[in-house]
Amino acid sequence: MILLDGKKTSNDIKDEIAVSVNEIKKRGEKVPHLAAVLVGNDGASLTYVGSKVRACERVGFNSTLIELPETTSEERLLKTINDLNNNNEIDGFIVQLPLPKHINEEKVLLAINPNKDVDGFHPENFGKMALEMDSFIPATPFGILQLLERYQVETKGKHTVVIGRSHIVGRPMSILMSQKGPAANSTVTLTHSYTKNLSQITKQADIIIVALGIPEYLKADMVKDNVVIVDVGISRVPDESKPKGYVIKGDVAFDEVSKKSSFITPVPGGVGPMTIAMLLKNTLIARERGGNHS
Amino acid sequence: MILLDGKKTSNDIKDEIAVSVNEIKKRGEKVPHLAAVLVGNDGASLTYVGSKVRACERVGFNSTLIELPETTSEERLLKTINDLNNNNEIDGFIVQLPLPKHINEEKVLLAINPNKDVDGFHPENFGKMALEMDSFIPATPFGILQLLERYQVETKGKHTVVIGRSHIVGRPMSILMSQKGPAANSTVTLTHSYTKNLSQITKQADIIIVALGIPEYLKADMVKDNVVIVDVGISRVPDESKPKGYVIKGDVAFDEVSKKSSFITPVPGGVGPMTIAMLLKNTLIARERGGNHS
Repeated sequence: MILLDGKKTSNDIKDEIAVSVNEIKKRGEKVPHLAAVLVGNDGASLTYVGSKVRACERVGFNSTLIELPETTSEERLLKTINDLNNNNEIDGFIVQLPLPKHINEEKVLLAINPNKDVDGFHPENFGKMALEMDSFIPATPFGILQLLERYQVETKGKHTVVIGRSHIVGRPMSILMSQKGPAANSTVTLTHSYTKNLSQITKQADIIIVALGIPEYLKADMVKDNVVIVDVGISRVPDESKPKGYVIKGDVAFDEVSKKSSFITPVPGGVGPMTIAMLLKNTLIARERGGNHS
Repeated sequence: MILLDGKKTSNDIKDEIAVSVNEIKKRGEKVPHLAAVLVGNDGASLTYVGSKVRACERVGFNSTLIELPETTSEERLLKTINDLNNNNEIDGFIVQLPLPKHINEEKVLLAINPNKDVDGFHPENFGKMALEMDSFIPATPFGILQLLERYQVETKGKHTVVIGRSHIVGRPMSILMSQKGPAANSTVTLTHSYTKNLSQITKQADIIIVALGIPEYLKADMVKDNVVIVDVGISRVPDESKPKGYVIKGDVAFDEVSKKSSFITPVPGGVGPMTIAMLLKNTLIARERGGNHS
């Protein structure tokens, strides 16, 4: 069993990005600049955005954090987005989700210039991705592809089963894994809450990608020997024996499933750390494409 | 065995559209107007575009056919598209593919105003479709969904196997069938040229959608009893006993597979006739959304 080590791999990617930034600086060119918009004071959102800003610092990017109060109107937020769209200094930006309930997320998403949409959530980017045109691949799926590629996991002709059809993980993974290209060309089955006999399907899988949000859902008796496991779940499970009062669990019963796996992502330290690295990568790509001049 | 009769169903849909057009006329409002751009003299393209124009006449739409010579420059075509984008009289338009080789199809596609893109090929529409937002569903997939829905074929929780990952049929079908909504909520496996043991997969399928372009590829020994078959293939197979010197064959060996099927589309007369009906439907939707005012 080989661990798909997201912590190590994401650090490798950040190092590579830092090298690129140094070269940009040596050439006297503008360094990549990522902006993040945060509306309100949600604790988890503050943590995520904070990590993104620190990651920018680490690789030498400029970053801008725009903090707006919980009471910000939709109109005001759309104005902020429009300013970022037109600001040539900013290569890419993200609007941290979720947004307060009085703001229409779809409207906000559609207002982002697709050339600066480094989260890859704008439908134009999603469509380009699905149609195999240049786009921004959403960070989590992009991170999973990178893990599979860098560990040289064979995907071509393999049967990949994706559990969960969310717009940000399951759906894009099912599309990407069945396309042409590296870490792709799989036969892909997408399963979800209406799927019958799930374990009958997972037992046929060479690769399983689980993005369900149910701690330790996937058990050893649901998989075959030498399966490749990518676990996207992150849940806090109460555990009074721990200092924080909880442990972090993935969607996979790691102890038992790892014994049957050829490759497996740990949780934490698997898919999670890859996400921010790929956001940085997308920002570097946005700068190279000159999205800020379009 | 029940035939999924596309000829009858498409006529039903056209009748429904004609009723809507009559109501629009009674209210003294502008009738839907579809434009088609044809570059060059490809015989098949001429036939397709001709059918589309005649279908418009039948339901009471206005239609405009813009015929440009084979030697038309990309710049000239883009100018034509821009004019159509800005012409408030036109609700939707299509650019008949394929285009001459000196013209970049992707560039042309991206130039179409997504609100008038009644073929649903623009990546913004494709992305909206994948993300379950309002969009234009490409005509062939839309037609297949309509057939399944109108014949009340149960899809929820069923295992649907799609053969072929083309951007215009296989990929969108795999997405649509696994979404929420009517004629959906299937567990979907998308197969393609790298798929191993295809017949082992098709034998597990409750529903098979074949869009491969290989005449009579799917045989009876590849399917289970009571399977639902949707055959998107249309090939001309030489046959000297026929007046035209050929017969039209689908991707399914109809005679033998139909005996094991609960529902099956014939070829011709199955999916084919649905495509133009759904193009008209998309044009009606475009008019209702007021795409020409955006």
